[in-house]
Amino acid sequence: MKRSERLVDMVKYLLERPHTLIPLPFFANRYGSAKSSISEDLSILKETLAANKNGILETVAGAAGGVRYIPFMGEQEAKEYLDNLASQVQDPKRILPGNFVYLSDILGSPANLAKIGQLIATKYAYSDVDYVMTVETKGIALAQAVSRYLNVPFVIVRRRPKITEGATISVNYVASSSERVEKMELAKRSLPEHSNVLIVDDFMKGGGTLTGMEELVKEFGCTVSGMCVLCESKNASQKVVDDYQSLITITEVDRTKNIIAAEAGNILKQTDFNRF
Amino acid sequence: MKRSERLVDMVKYLLERPHTLIPLPFFANRYGSAKSSISEDLSILKETLAANKNGILETVAGAAGGVRYIPFMGEQEAKEYLDNLASQVQDPKRILPGNFVYLSDILGSPANLAKIGQLIATKYAYSDVDYVMTVETKGIALAQAVSRYLNVPFVIVRRRPKITEGATISVNYVASSSERVEKMELAKRSLPEHSNVLIVDDFMKGGGTLTGMEELVKEFGCTVSGMCVLCESKNASQKVVDDYQSLITITEVDRTKNIIAAEAGNILKQTDFNRF
Repeated sequence: MKRSERLVDMVKYLLERPHTLIPLPFFANRYGSAKSSISEDLSILKETLAANKNGILETVAGAAGGVRYIPFMGEQEAKEYLDNLASQVQDPKRILPGNFVYLSDILGSPANLAKIGQLIATKYAYSDVDYVMTVETKGIALAQAVSRYLNVPFVIVRRRPKITEGATISVNYVASSSERVEKMELAKRSLPEHSNVLIVDDFMKGGGTLTGMEELVKEFGCTVSGMCVLCESKNASQKVVDDYQSLITITEVDRTKNIIAAEAGNILKQTDFNRF
Repeated sequence: MKRSERLVDMVKYLLERPHTLIPLPFFANRYGSAKSSISEDLSILKETLAANKNGILETVAGAAGGVRYIPFMGEQEAKEYLDNLASQVQDPKRILPGNFVYLSDILGSPANLAKIGQLIATKYAYSDVDYVMTVETKGIALAQAVSRYLNVPFVIVRRRPKITEGATISVNYVASSSERVEKMELAKRSLPEHSNVLIVDDFMKGGGTLTGMEELVKEFGCTVSGMCVLCESKNASQKVVDDYQSLITITEVDRTKNIIAAEAGNILKQTDFNRF
């Protein structure tokens, strides 16, 4: 097989399996090529990804070695995307009664979800993450997008008891929007003990929901790897969590004046882009 | 830029933008290369994808022409995956009280979701689909996976009124599991009139939920492009829909005998794989 044909197949194969170690002999067998040719192919791939700053190909040396594709976004692309996202969010038509913000279109757009997933996966590319966790309903799209690029499973916490998931563990939490004590639960079998869990959600006001998930993670005997939200509201009276990332900060929502203002969140400052 | 470097970048670029027409001059500018070189690159790409039966590169001739990447799964791969999925489903540990089946791990696994999304996107690759629709909660992962490969947005129907989505349109339906009349609703702004809508869901017993979504699509002045479920139960007393695709048919669930039997659904027979 020619180099050009090998490269086409190899890129597709690796992109579909992020964070997975592929031994060199696998490709040598797949294409009936010498290991030295495969090594050269992979060098081209690695350099092209690095030059365009849109992905890292990691080489692991030794007998158990191989290559691993790490989805990784360059700082410039991340900054441009967050500016673009902020201007999408700043559309006054998004303001709903009660100063809620309509975001379902963004959370249902494959192009936005791909960028959002890649950016969050960049921040946590070198952290220990075994599972992504979110709470139904709007966080799910976010969890799935991150799960795709970190290539780990995601679990969905329920706000209401469901009969179709078997035994559950539940915790109480105070929802920032209602100030009431509510309940959230997760199927026992969905999350093994000692897992590292990345918590994501679509929107943070006071952080009550995130705190609930944090507690749930501990109830499962697991560890929180990080917490990340798509949007945070700057005007929340007081936040109960402080160690989190946000993609967007909404600085003002006023339905009577028909104004909504948004800017890039803290994730840019808290991500180490110097891996390229 | 060398051909090998162009190919690496081109594959990544096209894979990230399925079903999108990319004009040839775009690549010529991006790489500072002659159009004739780009055409040769694309021929290599097209032939490699076709030879491996894992994607179609469509060439559109003329001044407004270009290339379009269509995610497409070969028949052999589809068959093998559904056999694999059926054996995942046949694990007796999945049986819950009331003969419900636990599927949340499959719906939270990025590898399964990628295959499921590709297979459903193969079936509908040449149909008119503007939106994917599902109902919360478990259908969401499926909708997002299909949305990714068809590269169209997805919308989430709510079973319970939510205050954070603005004006809605609602319909009543009879849930097969409870035999009760329930209500489902969708935010008015989320789905424009005259759209073609592909309905997906995780599980079909009698088809009541699918019928509800079908009706909702009509209330929005839209058209149903198709209906597809991950699992159907063969033992449902009577189905109210007949024109649908299923990936898996569960032929038996018996908690007392600890037996669950599953096989590939009807999607294989109803998909035209002869596009390669």
